[in-house]
Amino acid sequence: MKAVVLGAGSWGTAYAKVLGDAGNDVTIWARRPEMAEAIRSGRRNPDYHREVRLPERVTATADPEAAIRGAGLVVLAVPSQTLRGNLAGWRQWLEPDATLVSLAKGIELGTTRRMSEVIVEAAKVSPHQVVVVSGPNLAPEIAAEQPTATVVAGTEPARTAAVQQASSTAYFRPYTNDDVVGCELGGAVKNVIALAYGIATAMGLGDNTKATLITRGLAETARLGVRLGADPMTFAGLAGLGDLVATCTSPLSRNRTFGEQLGLGGSLAQAQAATRQTAEGVKSCLAIRDLARSHDVEMPITEQVERVCHEGVDPRAALTTLMSRSIKPE
Amino acid sequence: MKAVVLGAGSWGTAYAKVLGDAGNDVTIWARRPEMAEAIRSGRRNPDYHREVRLPERVTATADPEAAIRGAGLVVLAVPSQTLRGNLAGWRQWLEPDATLVSLAKGIELGTTRRMSEVIVEAAKVSPHQVVVVSGPNLAPEIAAEQPTATVVAGTEPARTAAVQQASSTAYFRPYTNDDVVGCELGGAVKNVIALAYGIATAMGLGDNTKATLITRGLAETARLGVRLGADPMTFAGLAGLGDLVATCTSPLSRNRTFGEQLGLGGSLAQAQAATRQTAEGVKSCLAIRDLARSHDVEMPITEQVERVCHEGVDPRAALTTLMSRSIKPE
Repeated sequence: MKAVVLGAGSWGTAYAKVLGDAGNDVTIWARRPEMAEAIRSGRRNPDYHREVRLPERVTATADPEAAIRGAGLVVLAVPSQTLRGNLAGWRQWLEPDATLVSLAKGIELGTTRRMSEVIVEAAKVSPHQVVVVSGPNLAPEIAAEQPTATVVAGTEPARTAAVQQASSTAYFRPYTNDDVVGCELGGAVKNVIALAYGIATAMGLGDNTKATLITRGLAETARLGVRLGADPMTFAGLAGLGDLVATCTSPLSRNRTFGEQLGLGGSLAQAQAATRQTAEGVKSCLAIRDLARSHDVEMPITEQVERVCHEGVDPRAALTTLMSRSIKPE
Repeated sequence: MKAVVLGAGSWGTAYAKVLGDAGNDVTIWARRPEMAEAIRSGRRNPDYHREVRLPERVTATADPEAAIRGAGLVVLAVPSQTLRGNLAGWRQWLEPDATLVSLAKGIELGTTRRMSEVIVEAAKVSPHQVVVVSGPNLAPEIAAEQPTATVVAGTEPARTAAVQQASSTAYFRPYTNDDVVGCELGGAVKNVIALAYGIATAMGLGDNTKATLITRGLAETARLGVRLGADPMTFAGLAGLGDLVATCTSPLSRNRTFGEQLGLGGSLAQAQAATRQTAEGVKSCLAIRDLARSHDVEMPITEQVERVCHEGVDPRAALTTLMSRSIKPE
């Protein structure tokens, strides 16, 4: 299959390698021409997974039109808050029946839309054309061919199965699911919980407390999901529990690492400087908080993370408040 | 309340401290008189949590009759495979309406009984008298007063609430639940999954794979639980997910540590020598495997752990088999 991966970040690059290893012809679109040239000529992404050589079937360009035209599989690997703007420019080149695969994890600020909703609106495609990939998928491990399972979720079974087949390799195993809402929420909220987990880690809290944080974090994710029509079982699976555990416990996780900087007493600006980026959860926590409030869903961990990130609340005070809630039936 | 904790191991000692800190008069029964004397005179358990001073309200004896007579709260903190034999000797001294609190995690070999069932049979008490405590409860952290939440589960609400109140402190927060079966299975199976997690850790498998192992491990626990009448939601809570995550991810966990020894290529005997004990999951995996088979429930992780522990299968080969199962819908 002819595939394009739009975005040359950590996950986009790793997923392009998966698609290439699975036998597809893949073009990575990179915003910067020098990045596209480096991938094309050097067969490596100089910014991410530098030690990994990309398969021969993977090439790169900085020209989105050349990349998108004729591609049956269009993989969206740009940051969640720029996806809508990117798609507005790109939609003119999409094949009418292209499958759009979302790798973005987040909720859009302002609109509180999930990424698949943003894609449908901005690309003016049918919801059946959109497939979401989500699971315990730390990109550096996938690039290094560590065995990894994931979930591909879509509403049209044949299309979902096609994405599963197109991205199946010996080290990357996708499982199909029809719960797009649940998979997207699992992927978005886990970044927020991982910020709290990072704060807890830096504060020296114990493994009992941190396991409780994961448990309560998944519970509030599922509460929101079920209210929005997700299948509660999705949260017990790879795109819920699996992704949450990987993101919280791995030192490779950007959101957890960002949370640790906050937990050490740093400001948001200091954490950004130390990690040289803004973690996705910092933006999403605001949109998820708004989404939860507008549907009357209690998300105490998300509320506290939002206060830490955007209202200047001391992270250690916020976490202590959270963990000392009163005794009650589960 | 007058309470007795039968067993001076790691968890029994930590729970005795909780009960003492919550204002109860507590007697620890220790099998060895010199241990009872050391606790009584030195206010410390020389084998577990040595740096922790026990509260004034905690004393100790090696005389089970003196300990049990008059106690309204009888806490069972002996190993799961010796519980039945111990109770046969102790039941003559139980107060008729005593509450029996089970801290033991496991399934009885041969009978495949849960611990609460063993208690009812061996102590000849009503099932309503039994309350189970289970959750993300690494004993060393509780002894060190790290904030910890747990679940107390029983079928008689007033009694369950009484145990909740009797063990509530600033650092230990119990939540009530009426699903005894679910809480017990969560507590028993997690030790088996932690053995697999330890093997995976020693093999250098990545965080994606290890998060998948936790997800699949909880799924097989829930499958067995639901077949036996448990509430599926219990497995998403502290006694399911919470306990599993704490036991798998913490270096303080005996079962995980034991699994790591196996994963390094050691035999069962070598792992026992290195950790100076047999992990609970080594025994329970056999009983849980039998329980699952007799109810036609698939538990692939438990099956492989049993083969490693009792049939001489190479742990690394078993885990590789497990993680490379074929692609299918979730």
